[in-house]
Amino acid sequence: MWRASVLTIFPGMFPGPLGQSLAGKALAAQRWAFETIDIRDFGLGVHRQVDDTPAGGGPGMVMRADVLARVIDSVTAEGRPRLLMSPRGTPLTQARVTQLAAGPGVIIVCGRFEGVDERVIAARGLEEVSVGDYVLSGGEIAALVLLDACVRLLPGVMGDEASGTEESFSGGLLEYPHYTRPPRFEDRPVPEVLLSGNHARIADFRREQAEKLTRERRPDLWQAYLARRTGAKKPPPET
Amino acid sequence: MWRASVLTIFPGMFPGPLGQSLAGKALAAQRWAFETIDIRDFGLGVHRQVDDTPAGGGPGMVMRADVLARVIDSVTAEGRPRLLMSPRGTPLTQARVTQLAAGPGVIIVCGRFEGVDERVIAARGLEEVSVGDYVLSGGEIAALVLLDACVRLLPGVMGDEASGTEESFSGGLLEYPHYTRPPRFEDRPVPEVLLSGNHARIADFRREQAEKLTRERRPDLWQAYLARRTGAKKPPPET
Repeated sequence: MWRASVLTIFPGMFPGPLGQSLAGKALAAQRWAFETIDIRDFGLGVHRQVDDTPAGGGPGMVMRADVLARVIDSVTAEGRPRLLMSPRGTPLTQARVTQLAAGPGVIIVCGRFEGVDERVIAARGLEEVSVGDYVLSGGEIAALVLLDACVRLLPGVMGDEASGTEESFSGGLLEYPHYTRPPRFEDRPVPEVLLSGNHARIADFRREQAEKLTRERRPDLWQAYLARRTGAKKPPPET
Repeated sequence: MWRASVLTIFPGMFPGPLGQSLAGKALAAQRWAFETIDIRDFGLGVHRQVDDTPAGGGPGMVMRADVLARVIDSVTAEGRPRLLMSPRGTPLTQARVTQLAAGPGVIIVCGRFEGVDERVIAARGLEEVSVGDYVLSGGEIAALVLLDACVRLLPGVMGDEASGTEESFSGGLLEYPHYTRPPRFEDRPVPEVLLSGNHARIADFRREQAEKLTRERRPDLWQAYLARRTGAKKPPPET
């Protein structure tokens, strides 16, 4: 079973939204397992201190390396990668999510305060992962993001297995636009081709729309898509 | 007061983790206000239906334009942007977070199922926002990300105001490494310069470390940083 261990000073934030909907049903059905480890249980002294002031001065508090190392060492890895949610990390992609979902699970360290002592990151080989180029108040909500993205890909979790393969990023493109009933909403009809019953024309329309969206909104993804499609080593010329 | 209205079929997921820690204390202290609107209350028929099968076929279900339009129209905008959390959207950045936090608040539509009927996005001027290049089971956790990022920047929310300005992305660089007590952890000492008391040397060391991290891990941010620093219109040559 795919197993997630989350190291946090806010265990009460979990499973939170993951206790409902797809992920919650899958948790109840034991398609994945989940535990929190309270970092404060490993804190120092009567106040269970887990942080201290930054060496060299500056704002905020830094999580201590010795405390975090003891928490990390208390969790049996069993082949699971140790992730640290951090805006300095490698940006999370659907490709990495797919890899993680195919593995035995994850151990996630949630940073808080100003940051985490650099030495424990190196000493315990933590893989820093960023969910995006913005700053959160801690790693907890970032951990929810990573877990939700992984859990929905686990076998038997999504109601419609095909949903996982026809969506944004899976083919290197943003997802095509969706339409449903009613056939006319205000002054806007559903595009005629979608009501034609001609599956080849519908597939062409959707691919064209997905390509157009990606080209307009995400030139970075578009260039990568073109490069992969043509098998070229260098990016194609600007269009 | 900064106000967030979240339109969702899972109101029970909120405030969730935002009810604790920094954001939770700020909510209790009325530094921001929060409401959920249950999309299902605006659903059709006895089953309160909010979705239907995709026009043109395919997996999953699509949220209806007419239902979503009625939910959106029920919320007084009062100058707040209407956001739709979606992997097809503009990637969220700290710059956009800062803008949103400086405004009157946000209205967030959480998509679910395969997607949202394209026509309501256009008809109601929804701004599609992506928290990253991965797929979640719905917009709810993405909404938590956006709200947490904004709320921590509201006046009086962060304990130490300076923390907001010395962190990843604020200066276009990833954040420098942090260290705290003990001075030696396993075989790893705190870098000597940080214990020197020489503030100028410490500032130099941190900037060098931040630049090195950014150059190595995020060439995209590094190029943008160099371009902005030199005021050049075109990116500098490769180093």
